[in-house]
Amino acid sequence: MAQDTVITSKDNPLIRRYRRICEDKRYRNTEHVFAVEGLRLVAEALQEGRCASLYVTEFAAAKYAGELRDGITKPVIISDALGKHLSETEHPQGVFALCYQTVMSFDSKTLRPDGRYLVLHELQDPGNMGMILRTADAFGIDAVLCCKCCDVLSPKVVRATMGAIFRLPVYQAPPPQALSLFLQEKGIRSYAAVLHQDAKPVTALQLGKGCAVWIGNEGNGLSGDAVNVCEEKLIIPMPGHAESLNAAMAAGILMWEMMKGGEANV
Amino acid sequence: MAQDTVITSKDNPLIRRYRRICEDKRYRNTEHVFAVEGLRLVAEALQEGRCASLYVTEFAAAKYAGELRDGITKPVIISDALGKHLSETEHPQGVFALCYQTVMSFDSKTLRPDGRYLVLHELQDPGNMGMILRTADAFGIDAVLCCKCCDVLSPKVVRATMGAIFRLPVYQAPPPQALSLFLQEKGIRSYAAVLHQDAKPVTALQLGKGCAVWIGNEGNGLSGDAVNVCEEKLIIPMPGHAESLNAAMAAGILMWEMMKGGEANV
Repeated sequence: MAQDTVITSKDNPLIRRYRRICEDKRYRNTEHVFAVEGLRLVAEALQEGRCASLYVTEFAAAKYAGELRDGITKPVIISDALGKHLSETEHPQGVFALCYQTVMSFDSKTLRPDGRYLVLHELQDPGNMGMILRTADAFGIDAVLCCKCCDVLSPKVVRATMGAIFRLPVYQAPPPQALSLFLQEKGIRSYAAVLHQDAKPVTALQLGKGCAVWIGNEGNGLSGDAVNVCEEKLIIPMPGHAESLNAAMAAGILMWEMMKGGEANV
Repeated sequence: MAQDTVITSKDNPLIRRYRRICEDKRYRNTEHVFAVEGLRLVAEALQEGRCASLYVTEFAAAKYAGELRDGITKPVIISDALGKHLSETEHPQGVFALCYQTVMSFDSKTLRPDGRYLVLHELQDPGNMGMILRTADAFGIDAVLCCKCCDVLSPKVVRATMGAIFRLPVYQAPPPQALSLFLQEKGIRSYAAVLHQDAKPVTALQLGKGCAVWIGNEGNGLSGDAVNVCEEKLIIPMPGHAESLNAAMAAGILMWEMMKGGEANV
């Protein structure tokens, strides 16, 4: 990697732009990029061809020259001090990128009758969102459909996905009623994950292909309008003392059950 | 709740003691207490008789008088400003307690041949630890055995347990080899959760009673000395792209499988 001019000022327009992309959701969406930090994630972005611009500290440019060369993306070299300024972590590796946005507008044509889907409605915690996307990617969920959730492309979420953000189809979904109609059209059955007494234990159901599991907000659970458009209410049996699971944990266990199951409703 | 003298100074010994209990693990263990914040958790501590001292802001004392009265614990009233000083959250409720420690020294007599156990070895992230304890409590795991983990009684872990810390048996366990002998003595089978190629998929195993599942460090997985003392290696099948699950998620899915299963090894 050639040692070009090294940027040292926080007021450099490229540096200000990176920080603003990190902090300002609206700006992120206007610019159609999001910020990614760390060698592993950035290398994945390069490999997937999603890297719009690359920022590397002098130290990292020397250390990771091999990993960061894709033949196309020319890195912006920044001082090691600026690396600390850009970083959201305590021990920055000095590798940063702005990447083309991966979250897609919803298109019902991508829904497959034998698909396995996760619908997130009003999920707010970035750590939960990241963990859910990582798990969905591991279990081969066909897509995650987000409705009124925290921003999927915030730095906290992106970090927690461990790269799933580059591989997993994630959509901005329409409101519950409209979304449920699109799912019904394809014969995909919607299950509301709730804590209601009259919900069916998931152990008595056959989740699998042709399923969409709906998960709600961390504090309040799935809202009434979302529950009402689902064909079935399900609950994860909890024989112990706790009243509820963390939302990401509940989503993970239900995706695990979807993955293990074959055809649903048969 | 009577309005006694209101503490207003950060230098008051009671206030300094609370902060030090929050921040200093060694002091926490010397004093045999840990710090708990928030109405729900503190009310639970009072109910379980684990509350050593109670700190309430003037505002909270008026608002939550009913919830915080147990007939025994006399609250220390502090100014609303001091509530912000003590709090670890952005929007403090103004309710704090020092509670008697709940984590126990390991005693092999408490192990039951038909028990379901989770062993955590070198788990380091407080958020993961809290989520695991909450899930273990929900699924009725008999005990969590911690070996060289992050401190279970740090404020971050305690908050994430959502009260499970007061209900679930948690032990400081001996090193892997000694622990495995205690488990073997009771006929409890140890399963190492790993990412090895030669591990058995959990779907081909019958987890349930008489099982201990071992989970390792977030970055490095379960260390060799821990894997070697287990009777069986297991893996959670991941047909998707991600190489691994978050450690808390993996633990949750394996506890779910243990909960669903009956007698193991039969």
